[in-house]
Amino acid sequence: MVFIFFEEFCVKVIDGGVTAAKGFKAAGVFAGLKKEKKDMALIYSKAKCTVSGTFTTNIVKAAPVVYDKQILDLHEGVHAVLINSKCANACTGKKGYDDCISTSNMLARALGIKNTESLLCSTGIIGTYLMMDRIEDGITLLVKNMDSDRASSRDAAMAICTTDTYEKEVAVSFLIDGKICHMGGMAKGSGMIHPNMATTLAFITTDVEIDEKTLNRLLGGSIEDTFNMVSVDGDTSTNDTVLVLANGEAGNSCLDENSSELSIFKEALDYCLETLAKELVRDGEGATKFISVKVSDAESREDAKKMARSVVSSSLFKAAMFGSDANWGRALCAMGYSGGNFNPDKVELAFSSKKGNIKVLENGTPLKFDESLASSVLSEKEIEVLISCNMGPFSATAWGCDLSYEYVKINGDYRS
Amino acid sequence: MVFIFFEEFCVKVIDGGVTAAKGFKAAGVFAGLKKEKKDMALIYSKAKCTVSGTFTTNIVKAAPVVYDKQILDLHEGVHAVLINSKCANACTGKKGYDDCISTSNMLARALGIKNTESLLCSTGIIGTYLMMDRIEDGITLLVKNMDSDRASSRDAAMAICTTDTYEKEVAVSFLIDGKICHMGGMAKGSGMIHPNMATTLAFITTDVEIDEKTLNRLLGGSIEDTFNMVSVDGDTSTNDTVLVLANGEAGNSCLDENSSELSIFKEALDYCLETLAKELVRDGEGATKFISVKVSDAESREDAKKMARSVVSSSLFKAAMFGSDANWGRALCAMGYSGGNFNPDKVELAFSSKKGNIKVLENGTPLKFDESLASSVLSEKEIEVLISCNMGPFSATAWGCDLSYEYVKINGDYRS
Repeated sequence: MVFIFFEEFCVKVIDGGVTAAKGFKAAGVFAGLKKEKKDMALIYSKAKCTVSGTFTTNIVKAAPVVYDKQILDLHEGVHAVLINSKCANACTGKKGYDDCISTSNMLARALGIKNTESLLCSTGIIGTYLMMDRIEDGITLLVKNMDSDRASSRDAAMAICTTDTYEKEVAVSFLIDGKICHMGGMAKGSGMIHPNMATTLAFITTDVEIDEKTLNRLLGGSIEDTFNMVSVDGDTSTNDTVLVLANGEAGNSCLDENSSELSIFKEALDYCLETLAKELVRDGEGATKFISVKVSDAESREDAKKMARSVVSSSLFKAAMFGSDANWGRALCAMGYSGGNFNPDKVELAFSSKKGNIKVLENGTPLKFDESLASSVLSEKEIEVLISCNMGPFSATAWGCDLSYEYVKINGDYRS
Repeated sequence: MVFIFFEEFCVKVIDGGVTAAKGFKAAGVFAGLKKEKKDMALIYSKAKCTVSGTFTTNIVKAAPVVYDKQILDLHEGVHAVLINSKCANACTGKKGYDDCISTSNMLARALGIKNTESLLCSTGIIGTYLMMDRIEDGITLLVKNMDSDRASSRDAAMAICTTDTYEKEVAVSFLIDGKICHMGGMAKGSGMIHPNMATTLAFITTDVEIDEKTLNRLLGGSIEDTFNMVSVDGDTSTNDTVLVLANGEAGNSCLDENSSELSIFKEALDYCLETLAKELVRDGEGATKFISVKVSDAESREDAKKMARSVVSSSLFKAAMFGSDANWGRALCAMGYSGGNFNPDKVELAFSSKKGNIKVLENGTPLKFDESLASSVLSEKEIEVLISCNMGPFSATAWGCDLSYEYVKINGDYRS
């Protein structure tokens, strides 16, 4: 039982995942797709859910992405999401798509829903087919095991992992229309900070009742400031998917664009997505450090975003962070090719961590600094890179990780 | 003495570098900028040279880049190029620019030329100042040592290196207007395949007489198909520079847009730049394999280029190549986010090396293939990735290297 203190308009962090919201069940099982770890997950709500999704912009779309878009286009809501790891069901042609149809038929039978009332996600190796007999057994097991307890959401969060080293969950509660509402979520890692590096999947469940159009608009905005700040726009894998399911079990009167309390829902959604996005990075393949790059005092928010993303994505800069090397020139260089506008002669740059704060650049001119202090600041697990453009009022933060030997090792032989 | 056989309209590869062309001298010396290796280079021609240059598009431009652009804008030609390694003279503010002025004054005195008749290039660490006393000593030594022999061009090619493991030179001869002409060049590595990863410098010298405008046009076109195919456009460092110097000592009548033999000159220039660009990649930081990605049968040349560059730049794909893992899904994924147009259902993909050729994808559908043969094909040092879009007549090739542990090691502690 989770203990909640409400302050007005406050979103409270609670323990939990996709079963934190009322009426949601989940399960995670081993179905034999992987060698031994859990590899299939289910999210289910008896009450039909309003649903919103964002998908990869890659031309090469996995079969479940194509399938899910068609389901969302029906605008009829869904009861369930089925996820498998190990096989991405991407580049699998007509058979891959037919396997989605078969899967949703199996799931419909097992759950007693229509075959258009579930969504499907896959992550893993591109170009291999789903083992349909195991998928069928997995569905049976999932439906049998699904539950609304804490352990079940964790099982689901574990089952969607690929190279992730731990499961990623989040949950919050908040008050809307006098009702206690909940939102929970889980995600699987993108390996490195670019979602082009591996698949990002994230799932948010909430018991709030909300209008579909409003949910779509909020999700689009929130993704832009969270998942897209640990990535470069357009650099997405074949399977990237973020889904939000709202089943209305909290009993609030339906939220829409005119609702005065919409901002509370937005705050909860932003928090859940930002938390999951940061966790993806923290557990980046081979990551030894978590790096925040904050670009402030830019001429526009778009400029600030471009620069922050460019710095946090630079392999050279990431390798320097791995080596605790205060090579700020690589950050400035990455800002320079980001497409964001700034004046190199006005830039200030500092590194910050628990060990202290060290400014290395002012008015675009290098400062003499204590190398041993810099090295100590950068040896921490959490590092902030603080960049001021001294040009305007806009800022943005991007999150990333360092580039380590381990990353190369993991990705040199991913398929075996 | 180099032995040359001429066939008509033929460009002949010869041994040599920047002193292969008549009238050019070079030198490379140790001036104390690095710990022990050669760190300053000079190219000199008594006859004034027509010159063309392309520079970084990075907003953050090193002082010598700013300086050189001003010299080129005078359109008066130059006699010399002075290059130093170890210090990039970038992000060094007014002092960095003033150091360029001082350097060109020293060089002018030492060579007996005007201070507007030389170009300057630097490569190395961003944010440190040139050690001007050592630069001065270096200039004295360079002018004393410069010579037109083979050893001198090699010394120069060695002195411009940073993390390069060997010097990169090229030379050709060809016949224009009945005169034997020469072209030679040298380059320093870009570390990894993106020039944003480190600085690319390249220098071409020729004894051909050619009109400046024509030279500018040819260089622009040639760079597009060579240096820009081992890079992503706009992803350039603070110092990237390619210079072509033509001193007219071959005695041909001046080449211009109307010259029937301009195509021979173009062929020579393309060959020299492509050779140097590929050498940069071959000697990429930590590279263990050289990878060519050829995208053919695309709807446009631009589409083919985008896809080829995207595949060869993908960290995930590069890591798979390092691990000899036939993970073609990562190639298709990189094509998908490249911005180039194609139909995933029509794609064919094969890997090829000395060990054989193995097709893994046809009509966008994975083929069953012999994993041990694939692994053997990919264990070679030179790998071709052959992709057909089956949509049109256009093709493009990009060159890259794999991503190894060594890359991370080199870049984790570059400054020490």
